Amino acid sequence: MRESRRRVAIEGVRPEIDAGEHPIKRTVGDRVTVEFDAFADGHDRVAAVLVHKHECDVAWSETRAEALGNDRWRASFAVDRLGTYHYTVAAWVDAYATWAAELQKRVEAGQDVALELDEGAILVGEAAKRAKAADAAALRSLGRRLRDGDAAAAAEATALMDRHAARRDPTRYARVLEVAVERERAAASAWYKVFPRSVFAGPTAAGEAGVRQGTLADVRERVLPHAAGLGFDVLYLLPIHPIGRTFRKGRDNALAAGPDDPGSPYAIGSEEGGHCAVAPALGTVDDVRALAAACRERGMDLALDIAFQCSPDHPWVREHPEWFRHRPDGTIRYAENPPKKYQDIYPLDMTGAAWRELWGALRDVFLFWAAQGVRAFRVDNPHTKPFGFWRWCLAEVKRVYPDAIFLAEAFTRPKVMARLAKAGFSQSYTYFTWRTEKWELERYLTELTATELAEFMRPNFWPNTPDILPFHLQEGGRPAFLSRATLASTLAASWGVYAPAFELLENAPLAPGREEYRSSEKYELRRWDLDDPKSIAPFLASLNRIRQVHPALRRDRPLTFHRVDNDQLIVYSKRRDGDTVLVVVSLDWRWPQSGWTDLDLAALGIEEGGRFTVRDELTGKTYPWSGGRNFVRLEPDLPAHIFAIEDQQ
Amino acid sequence: MRESRRRVAIEGVRPEIDAGEHPIKRTVGDRVTVEFDAFADGHDRVAAVLVHKHECDVAWSETRAEALGNDRWRASFAVDRLGTYHYTVAAWVDAYATWAAELQKRVEAGQDVALELDEGAILVGEAAKRAKAADAAALRSLGRRLRDGDAAAAAEATALMDRHAARRDPTRYARVLEVAVERERAAASAWYKVFPRSVFAGPTAAGEAGVRQGTLADVRERVLPHAAGLGFDVLYLLPIHPIGRTFRKGRDNALAAGPDDPGSPYAIGSEEGGHCAVAPALGTVDDVRALAAACRERGMDLALDIAFQCSPDHPWVREHPEWFRHRPDGTIRYAENPPKKYQDIYPLDMTGAAWRELWGALRDVFLFWAAQGVRAFRVDNPHTKPFGFWRWCLAEVKRVYPDAIFLAEAFTRPKVMARLAKAGFSQSYTYFTWRTEKWELERYLTELTATELAEFMRPNFWPNTPDILPFHLQEGGRPAFLSRATLASTLAASWGVYAPAFELLENAPLAPGREEYRSSEKYELRRWDLDDPKSIAPFLASLNRIRQVHPALRRDRPLTFHRVDNDQLIVYSKRRDGDTVLVVVSLDWRWPQSGWTDLDLAALGIEEGGRFTVRDELTGKTYPWSGGRNFVRLEPDLPAHIFAIEDQQ
Repeated sequence: MRESRRRVAIEGVRPEIDAGEHPIKRTVGDRVTVEFDAFADGHDRVAAVLVHKHECDVAWSETRAEALGNDRWRASFAVDRLGTYHYTVAAWVDAYATWAAELQKRVEAGQDVALELDEGAILVGEAAKRAKAADAAALRSLGRRLRDGDAAAAAEATALMDRHAARRDPTRYARVLEVAVERERAAASAWYKVFPRSVFAGPTAAGEAGVRQGTLADVRERVLPHAAGLGFDVLYLLPIHPIGRTFRKGRDNALAAGPDDPGSPYAIGSEEGGHCAVAPALGTVDDVRALAAACRERGMDLALDIAFQCSPDHPWVREHPEWFRHRPDGTIRYAENPPKKYQDIYPLDMTGAAWRELWGALRDVFLFWAAQGVRAFRVDNPHTKPFGFWRWCLAEVKRVYPDAIFLAEAFTRPKVMARLAKAGFSQSYTYFTWRTEKWELERYLTELTATELAEFMRPNFWPNTPDILPFHLQEGGRPAFLSRATLASTLAASWGVYAPAFELLENAPLAPGREEYRSSEKYELRRWDLDDPKSIAPFLASLNRIRQVHPALRRDRPLTFHRVDNDQLIVYSKRRDGDTVLVVVSLDWRWPQSGWTDLDLAALGIEEGGRFTVRDELTGKTYPWSGGRNFVRLEPDLPAHIFAIEDQQ
Repeated sequence: MRESRRRVAIEGVRPEIDAGEHPIKRTVGDRVTVEFDAFADGHDRVAAVLVHKHECDVAWSETRAEALGNDRWRASFAVDRLGTYHYTVAAWVDAYATWAAELQKRVEAGQDVALELDEGAILVGEAAKRAKAADAAALRSLGRRLRDGDAAAAAEATALMDRHAARRDPTRYARVLEVAVERERAAASAWYKVFPRSVFAGPTAAGEAGVRQGTLADVRERVLPHAAGLGFDVLYLLPIHPIGRTFRKGRDNALAAGPDDPGSPYAIGSEEGGHCAVAPALGTVDDVRALAAACRERGMDLALDIAFQCSPDHPWVREHPEWFRHRPDGTIRYAENPPKKYQDIYPLDMTGAAWRELWGALRDVFLFWAAQGVRAFRVDNPHTKPFGFWRWCLAEVKRVYPDAIFLAEAFTRPKVMARLAKAGFSQSYTYFTWRTEKWELERYLTELTATELAEFMRPNFWPNTPDILPFHLQEGGRPAFLSRATLASTLAASWGVYAPAFELLENAPLAPGREEYRSSEKYELRRWDLDDPKSIAPFLASLNRIRQVHPALRRDRPLTFHRVDNDQLIVYSKRRDGDTVLVVVSLDWRWPQSGWTDLDLAALGIEEGGRFTVRDELTGKTYPWSGGRNFVRLEPDLPAHIFAIEDQQ
């Protein structure tokens, strides 16, 4: 028999991902707000609580839920420690509240309530037995007053009864749900991505041929201060490991490398070592420790690029051939996307016979670098390894380093990207790089910020990457760079640029119709003049400064799009803790664009018809506005307003 | 360690109610269509199946799922037996399909595929070992051809490989879901509700005072043929049990009954018996058996009204005082909705100390009447008993009588109504009775037919009930009756009327501003002249005949609302198995209304701009229509069109 006399039904608990299979995500200091339906048969009053605890706690904490109407309830709790929190809800029929509410109606109708007061006295007396000391005495006294006919004692007893009355047959929700709590930077960050060998590559000593490769020491001394000066808080290096020789790719991805070509840093491993080694030309593991420490001193993170694949020269190929797939002729299977072949890369056989040993070795790569002080990892192509691997591996790393954060570089199908986020990645690459029209930006951002996705997938917006030079940057030039950087840094709480290519407006494609860089740093050294007067570094610095001043920009939601009568202008706002930012961006790289807004004033916290002042944080100019209809005009020179809202009257 | 090398993720299985806690509902002969996400890491091909079985089957059946794009899959199965079906889904990486797809790309690119063919031959050889007889031989032969360099054998082997290839590390969805399968009448029915004592109450024999009470024999001989003639398929009697004397209510709900007042049939139980007895004035249990059999002979159901509450004179009050709540003074608590008191009714204490015995006794009430041949039950106020009770009780009854159907009379909060449907009620009362405006009808029907609700809650629409004479019937008279009957019988697959009050246009309220009947049959005998020329019985008969001819009207969905440029007209259509019905109803009881439609032709199965003929099933008139824009006009005399769509050109 499945019968039970628990009378309260609990349904529709939100947030809840895949029936509790996956956690929601928060950062330290956030609140988790939980809503749910709880209702009983009949007309009795229901009481409901949210219960919650950190994974290390033994006891559950309890927060009384507030009734929202239509049998919906809400309660929230703060998460203030890294790790996993657990939460669920419970509800029961509140006999005392039911009695007290009915008593009041009877009293108001002038009925004789002597018998009712006796019933209440019994309830209060039972609670008195459960209470101790002062509470017990107070309840006994209230019980006596009820028995003596004092109906006013009923309301006075409410708080004590909430604490001490027995909960009869409470219903506890069927599942305990989880919150993965990470540090603040998991939610809000600005990434500065460089090829460490390349940024400050310089001329070699007099008399030698070629250019001198940049080193980790160069990065520490020159790139880090530069990135910090621009307000970025994650310095992210492409892979730093020894690079294979076999089938090494040449400039512009040529099949054969010249003798001086440095090779793609994604062809990982040589006789000099694999995923736990540093290419000698860049430096040593000690240099990584020093760089990580230097980042930490500035309040920044050093992020390494973890790409789980091997060049044919990787030590694992010799030491662990069982970690790779073999063909009938005994050779190791190289990477392919038929008919394309990537003979310089051996994928790992993630589900082969030796999978457990391999998974352990991969986890140990993260643990090794974490031990050197690295706490941020950008993971290359995670969608080509099993979801179950990531779920296990990231949990293993976080068990030792709960402050580790992981960015998933997966440009793949939407459900696969979402699943990686569920598996534990702190942040995710997105389709932003290719979303350029107003309607598609609005639709995509609505999906990211106003659906269940927002509970577990944190977007990181990139206007460019070493692999992607989108057509609009090729064609739009400087205005496009400014517009896209503004969108990336204000639509998403995390953003990044492949720099210095971005700040120096590099936009020559490999060939017409291709979205890849010509003379890509993936295959050759490039020297960048960061002092070039055309640099948009000051603009990027402004964006990051504005993000630092405005907490609203350091969360993805709530995000509101506002109407404007021009499809070349996009208008949106964010609010958080009383901070409101309204952004207007032009999507036209050639011509000035203007329009009349139709602002959703409620989303801005402004009363209908109210007057207020907007101050453009990019220029410092202020504009007196009134109501929802206001005129905006943007030129390609500075195709954005980032308005702080001030002086509401 | 939670790691696993299962590579496929399965998510978003629909339908699934509350993570599988509650079943979806279907009727015998329906199909269950299941959609879900299934995807793996990387680029390998995935195969997916729906598995399903009846609760009495041992083995699972398997249906291959079809890929819909965006990692979504669909499959369906038929349910052809009463009871519970189970279903879930499974998916795995299809090594052979992956290999074959890549082979084709290599062949098309003109690559040397000798090694690939060897790999394929190994896969085929492994499958040959798992196959038997002819399949094994065929696979061995295909393997030889591959080894001999015949790439064409790859595609030829697909079907055999689907059958015999090993499924590596398949993922089975975490939950097994349920389908409650009932008989067709659970989904589609037309209820004719009467007070058996009243319909053919007649003058007493000469010389006696008062009127003679109708009997179950009268119902069998006169009401049943009448209801059958109108096309109703459920004859539903208000409670037939002995009625208590203590605090009996008089005419028009007067607090004191006169000596001849028959009392409310909901004050159940007297010294003559309780829930398993028949009021002697109506007849005997044998009469119920005879009436149930007579209904069955006509292909109809007899439905009894089960109201779990007792008059103070009910035998249970004496025999099982522990089934009621007692007050501190030892009296039994009567029903109250403070400050209102219902002293003629004792509610049962559904969660008191003796709850298990009480629940058993209540279940036995259903079993008793089912044993007499009754298979349909209208349950009064189920929302005042615990959901867990219904879930248990209805399952217990269906275990013995899987053809039993239950209608929940719960006019209460929306989530409570939905929960009762989840607990096992076949059909549900709704808010239709009070939804009169076009926008609110459209919104409510969209909620009922196009959300998850449609998977488990089957609405039964009532234009009136003995307790509810809505204002629009009071004010609108005959046109309102016709309009509301048309809406009820064509919007919902199940409908009913409190008859003959409805067919005779009874609409005098208890008092102005009250939605109750004056001289309600609940408290007095009424004699109805079913031959009254003002009767709208012929119209009700037409509605039921049209429902019988059109299968589209015997399901709630798919339902499509069409635009029309007049808010006093509502236009909607239903389609099923090639049958299409388009309904136009006027919501104005006073004036003619006309308008131009803007039909959603795709929902009608008509090509853009197509010509077609609509035939009004109410009048037989036909109209040649073309495209989506057509003129309609309705008069209060006949405020509805029910169009069959014919002769599409």
